[in-house]
Formats: sequence, C-alpha cells, structure tokens
Amino acid sequence: MSAGLGEFGRIQRFFAPLTAAAPGAFGLADDAAVIGDFVVTVDAIVEGVHFLPHDPPERVAQKLLRVNLSDLAAKGARPVGYVLTMALPSRCDDRWVERFAEGLAQDQTAFGVSLLGGDSVSTPGPITLSLTALGEPSACGMVRRTGAGPGDLIFVSGTIGDGALGLLAATGRLAEPQPGQRDYLIGRYQLPQPRLALGRALAGTAHAMMDISDGLVGDLEHLCAASAVGAVIEAAAVPLSEAAASLIALDPGLLETVLSGGDDYELLFTVAAEADMARLAAATGVNLTCIGRIEMGDAVRAVDRDGFPIGLSQTGFRHS
Amino acid sequence: MSAGLGEFGRIQRFFAPLTAAAPGAFGLADDAAVIGDFVVTVDAIVEGVHFLPHDPPERVAQKLLRVNLSDLAAKGARPVGYVLTMALPSRCDDRWVERFAEGLAQDQTAFGVSLLGGDSVSTPGPITLSLTALGEPSACGMVRRTGAGPGDLIFVSGTIGDGALGLLAATGRLAEPQPGQRDYLIGRYQLPQPRLALGRALAGTAHAMMDISDGLVGDLEHLCAASAVGAVIEAAAVPLSEAAASLIALDPGLLETVLSGGDDYELLFTVAAEADMARLAAATGVNLTCIGRIEMGDAVRAVDRDGFPIGLSQTGFRHS
Repeated sequence: MSAGLGEFGRIQRFFAPLTAAAPGAFGLADDAAVIGDFVVTVDAIVEGVHFLPHDPPERVAQKLLRVNLSDLAAKGARPVGYVLTMALPSRCDDRWVERFAEGLAQDQTAFGVSLLGGDSVSTPGPITLSLTALGEPSACGMVRRTGAGPGDLIFVSGTIGDGALGLLAATGRLAEPQPGQRDYLIGRYQLPQPRLALGRALAGTAHAMMDISDGLVGDLEHLCAASAVGAVIEAAAVPLSEAAASLIALDPGLLETVLSGGDDYELLFTVAAEADMARLAAATGVNLTCIGRIEMGDAVRAVDRDGFPIGLSQTGFRHS
Repeated sequence: MSAGLGEFGRIQRFFAPLTAAAPGAFGLADDAAVIGDFVVTVDAIVEGVHFLPHDPPERVAQKLLRVNLSDLAAKGARPVGYVLTMALPSRCDDRWVERFAEGLAQDQTAFGVSLLGGDSVSTPGPITLSLTALGEPSACGMVRRTGAGPGDLIFVSGTIGDGALGLLAATGRLAEPQPGQRDYLIGRYQLPQPRLALGRALAGTAHAMMDISDGLVGDLEHLCAASAVGAVIEAAAVPLSEAAASLIALDPGLLETVLSGGDDYELLFTVAAEADMARLAAATGVNLTCIGRIEMGDAVRAVDRDGFPIGLSQTGFRHS
C-alpha cells in the first residue's frame, strides 16, 4: 500500500461508510460479517506478496483457503462453502491449475467445505487470488473482537512466530537453520492450520477472538482497539516451537520477528478464567497458552519476566 | 488464458468436481450458486483486460459491482450485499481509492445493496478486483440456464453489441464514429445497466435466463448447452442502438462484432409465448425483442431475413 492513509486508514475512511446500512458488517472492524444465517469473510493473496513464485500450486490453493477458514475459526463459525476468483498469467498452464485444484480437493475433505462458484481470468501480472468463505455461526452467534474486558486473560493457540520465521527461511534470510527446522518453519508459513474445532468450542466462552495474521502484537492492538481496552503481555510466556526457541537462543533479535511477524493464523482470544482451557486444549489437541491480561486504557505493552517493558520497533507486520 | 484446455475446459475438468457435495453450485454450469437463502455470484476484473488503465476509478468500481449485479438480475434475484477484494499497485493513491469508493456509494444507492466486507492488498501488477455478490432469490427460486425447451421464443433486453463497439471506440479501433456515438458506446462499455427489475419480473416466466457478458452467440450457446437444445436466431432481428445501426450501415463487417462481442450485460432468456413481453417491457422501461427460437438439436445458428445461414468466424468473445 502506498504512503498516505495506509490500508487501515483507507478502509475506515472510504469503505466503512459504505456499510452504514448493513449492521452485520460491523463497520469493517471485525474479521467477518454476518448476513442472514451466514458468517462471511474474504481474503486476497498475491504472488510475491503473500506467497512465493515457486511455492507449489497445491500449497498456494491451501493457503488461500486456510487463511479464510482461519477467519471463520476465529468467529466460532463452521465453514460451509466458498467462491473463488483466480487471475492467472499465461505461464500457469493446465498442470498448474490441476495441481491448484488438487490442493483445494485435499482441504475440502479435511475441512468439510465445498466450492460453490468462481471466475477465472487472465492477467499480465502476478497470480492474484481471492476467496470468499461462508460459514455457519455457532448457536451463540458470531464471536466478535469487541468483548474483551479488563481482567480478562489473553490466550493464544499453538506456537507464535513460526510463520514469520518460515518466510525468512524460505527467502534465505535466516542464518543457518537446521534442515529439520527449515522444513518445519516453511511448512508453517505455507500451510496454516485453521483452528476450526477450537474456535467453535470457544464460542460462548471467549469474550473476544481473532486470528493472528498480521503479527501477535499488532493484532492484539486491533482486538484491544475494538474492545476499547489495553493489554499487557509477558514476552517470555509467548509459546514458541522448538525451532523458534532455538533460533532465538542463537539470535535474540528474532524475538521481535516472532512477536510482530505475520502468518501465524493461530487464535488470539480473551476469557474470564483459565479454568476450562486445559480441558479444551486436550479436547482439540491444540496447545493453549495464557500470555497476558487485558487492562483498562488503550496501550498494548510487552514486558519481560521481571515486568520491565520490552520495546517493539514495529507493532505489526504488513503484507501490503 | 493460455493454450490447452481453455477457461471452460479447466472449470469443467478441474473445478466442477470440487462442487460434488454442493448441489446448489450446479456443477459451475450456471451464473450463480444457491446456498441457504442466498444466490451467490463472483466475478473478477483486471486492468488492461476488463477495463482500461485510464478508466475513471468511479466507473471501474461501478463496472465491477454491476457485472455481478447483472448475474443476480439474470437469476431473478434481488441484490443484498457484497464483499470485495482489491489488489492495488502503489500508483493507486488515496484519491484513486476515494473515487473508487465514491463510485460504489453511488451504485449502492441506485441498486439498494451494501458493502459487507473486504480485503485490500498491494500488488506489483495491474489493478485486480474481485467481488462476491449475495442476493435473495425470488419466491420462484433461482432462474436457471437449463429450462429452455424446443419452441421457446428467445428474447434479449435492450440493445446488443454496444459494449463491444464501445471497447473498439475507447481503444481507437473504430473508424470515424460521430462524437455522440463514441460517448454513448464508451458509456455502454464502461457502465453496464444490470436489468434487476426485469430479471425479477421474469422469475417464474422465463424458462431459462443468463446475462450476455461474452457475446450474444457464445452465451446463447452456453444456455442451449445447459438446456440440451439448439437455437436459430435471425440476425436482422437483433436489436441495435442507433449508434450501432449506423456504424454497421457504414461497415457491415461490424455485424459480427455485435453478434459475438462481449460486455453487453443485457438479459438473454426464453419464454413460452410473446404474450406478456410488451407489458413487461413497459413496466420495466427496458425494450424486449424476440430474436429467434429454441430448436431440437445442439446447434446455434444465425440466419438472415430470408432464412439463409450467416457464417460466424468466432462464436464468443473471450476476455481472457
């Protein structure tokens, strides 16, 4: 995005007013909209921006679908169907498209979702893909970003930062990762795991929830802004994969990449109490970790084990 | 689209199987899908392919929205809301985006539809836009492409060929149009008129319906294939604007552009009898013209006034 208002500024200024007649659009301030009996979300990805030119077409298809399923997961919704547009350069031959469709087929089976429609057009530019996913909200309705209150505990699913480290690894910008680490991290970057069962189980329990696509700290700022609260997170509590932990041990500067980098697609949510979280983690097979607490105010702070502030030079990764 | 299977071949071979579990997707053989209480359609447009680099951003936004509303019109559905993705190069500054949103705002008022959500990303390539529109089907359900039967009369709304001639005019490929003609035709190319009231009025009456986006003859072939019938159209009956008629009088070769060119976004439909059409035309303010008849078989033929066949070297315009 060029200088000026930036992506969020443009959305707020030019596009949010276009939703005035649609309360279910929530002023474009949430991950998804509600229309009729459906939760609707949409994401676009561009070659060279959100995925790499040599990523396998199956993985590109799966990433496109999964980033949208991750939004549905964060809203406690069950995915039902999706529509798709593909702008493809002429070098994407029949075999590329076939492999792309094979990736979708695998994930349709894995996540119980079906293609409903699409459009395919040619482009002189990079591969550009857009997907709109429709889901059914839980009986408790769509989980919003807005319900966090002071005293809430802040939880994340899985491990944080693998996506950002995977992007560094895939583009040769990570000094000397072990081969196993490298494959693991690139896999995490290419293939997000939408936390659908967890998200659905959290509907009715989580006060506020979103998925982490632009970085833990930046996305927590969004959640807090939507809820009109602040937050403090303890950096040492942020759950790391073995690969991420050993890389940070070698280069502590990578901690900031982990806290601020994008592409995690884990769930970030707040709850009143820790009580049910262990049971939920066991039931869904996804680790859940308390990383901090919601506070009065509007600041999101990171502190070390001793409560001293950790400076963050960038608070969110921007794909664009 | 590159050589090989082509757009339709790829859709049929690789993507139609992905809809096996969703009967409302109609095997990707219709203009839209049915999911729950909604009709859903999606289209993408690319700068330099579907619109011109210097087209005003308001018009680009309106074209994007209207090509989707035209699909809803052709299914007899009432538009409700839409989601949008924009991949924008850095040269699209805040003012470009503001004007784009102004175009949407105008059409939201005109067509009673609301933005529900979106995503904006950067691209190193051309402006690439995708829009998913949701509509409510009429009480008679979604009008399909599949219901045409032998003996049905074939009707079109409005005038045919202005979009294709407008593209020629806008790109300097039309020899000496009058200034008034030029503006009219470019306007028709840039700003399709979705026939929403007409489409809705035809639900329950039209046996089969679609909008004409890829050219009259090619789209009639699609409708006939979906209905497993053939058709004969009388070329001289195809309704022309004054501009198109006078251009063809000067250059009869343009008749083929009119019959086969894209971007009309008029409705193509079949009915059992001519009876109600004059009343419907008066009620909706849209001209309706009978251009031919559905036949047994699988061929779509064009004939002159005396019934002699007219050869068509290309049967459909492809944007891609």
